[in-house]
Order: sequence, then C-alpha cells, then structure tokens
Amino acid sequence: MRRTRFDDAYCPVARTTDLLADWWTPLVLRQLFFGERRFAQLTQSLDISKATLSSRLKRLEAEGIVDKAQYEDRPPRFEYQLTEKGVALWDVVAAMWRFGDDWMFDRPAGAQVMLVDKATGEQIQPQTIDANTGQRLNLATTRVRLR
Amino acid sequence: MRRTRFDDAYCPVARTTDLLADWWTPLVLRQLFFGERRFAQLTQSLDISKATLSSRLKRLEAEGIVDKAQYEDRPPRFEYQLTEKGVALWDVVAAMWRFGDDWMFDRPAGAQVMLVDKATGEQIQPQTIDANTGQRLNLATTRVRLR
Repeated sequence: MRRTRFDDAYCPVARTTDLLADWWTPLVLRQLFFGERRFAQLTQSLDISKATLSSRLKRLEAEGIVDKAQYEDRPPRFEYQLTEKGVALWDVVAAMWRFGDDWMFDRPAGAQVMLVDKATGEQIQPQTIDANTGQRLNLATTRVRLR
Repeated sequence: MRRTRFDDAYCPVARTTDLLADWWTPLVLRQLFFGERRFAQLTQSLDISKATLSSRLKRLEAEGIVDKAQYEDRPPRFEYQLTEKGVALWDVVAAMWRFGDDWMFDRPAGAQVMLVDKATGEQIQPQTIDANTGQRLNLATTRVRLR
C-alpha cells in the first residue's frame, strides 16, 4: 500500500526506487546492458526462476525499459531489447558499480571484475558530477526545493 | 538463499543491490542526506513503522553506512550520522534522482522537487561520467573483464 502511495509522490528517488528496489531487477539490467537478450540465456546466467524473471521483465516492459520481440515461432521464443529509457538506467547501475567497487570489497583487491573501454582497454571509472559545473557532487552544499 | 550466494559474488552491482534493494533503504538514505538524524523524525517523515525503520537502520549500521549515537538518556533516544561510506552513497542516489527526473515523470513538468546549490540557488544536475576521460558513459563501447 505504501509503495503505491509513494509511487505517486514528488520525489524522483522514490519513483526510481519503486522501479529498481527489487533484488533481481538491477541484475537483470546488468545482463541486458552487456548484451544478453534472450529469456533462456538470462535464466541461466542469473540462476533465477522463470516465474521471477518473467515478472521482472514484464515490469520493465510496462515501464518502457525494454521492448519484447519474438525471434522464433515454434516454440515461441522472445528477446528483450533495451529502449532509450533502459539505456539511461546504465548511469544509475554504473554509479552502483563504482560504489560497490570502492566500498563493498576488501581493499586493496576490490572487485574481481572491472569496466573497460572496448577499444583502448582502459579502465572506466563511473563518477557522478554536477553537469552544470562539472564538479563532483557535494552533499554539504546541496538542498532540495520545490520547482 | 540466492541472496546469500550473490552477496559473495564478484560483481560490485550485486553487492550494492544487496545493500539498496529494499524499497525503504534509498528513502531512509534520502532523509539522512538532507539532514534528518533522529529516529522519531524519520518515522514521521517517511510514514514507516518503527520495526521497519529499525531493521533498515540496523543493516545500515552493520554495513558501516551510519553511526548510531545516543543523544538523550531518559528516555534513551538515538540519532544516526552518515559515515564517509554513507556519504559516498549519495552518488548512487543522485544518479537515481537524475534518472527519475528525466524519465519517471510526465514531461515537461518533471519532478516537483529539484536539487539546488545552497549558495547560488543554481540547479544541480547529477550526471554519470567516466572519471578517466571526463566523457559521459557509453554502454556500446564498454565491456566487463576480470581484473
């Protein structure tokens, strides 16, 4: 009940929380970001039940995050392609990646996986900035106001 | 069971998901980011049960996201202060803010709340970049590899 109420709320964090705050959803997105599209492939790589995966993908489709397309007739098989809105979620999941890498592993090893540029092989380090100033965010000088 | 297994996994997204993927947790953090510290205040502004808030704060304390301190003896009352690790989570929640503002409201109005700089009043627009190049992230040229 509370979820429904908050979904209508003013806050962009509440709405995005309502979308992402299921344990599986960010992981389903992670697989989609890195090229997995097929239902069977996703169940296998995530070790997730078909029912759970199906409900998460239905939600993502309803929210306009993925488009569903049939790629085989008999038996009917489906794949899922990220929309523009879906690709925009990478900025959020990439910020999670950075935080996780910085804070959720024992240093100095860090996470055993890293993001790299396909062409150069250079490490990619997601960082959240203020687009208007180019500076890192500073909570101490930030407040919220009504638009 | 699956959660436990993934918590030990290689992936920084999986670990951060394990931390954030409860519907209340990002909202509790949002309140802490903007200066609420007291248990009673948090229950009121979030309209959350004491038991739920208490379990979320316990988890955040166990993860080193908040420090708990007693500020009154009789009756015993507690407040919660973000640690350095906790403040680092703002980058993630700010990326959620940006995505929500861009994609989860009807345009052109957008969210009814905005982030501004305390001193200048200018809008703050979180954006995720690659710290090594200063460029916006590009999923098409990104891959994952073992460290």
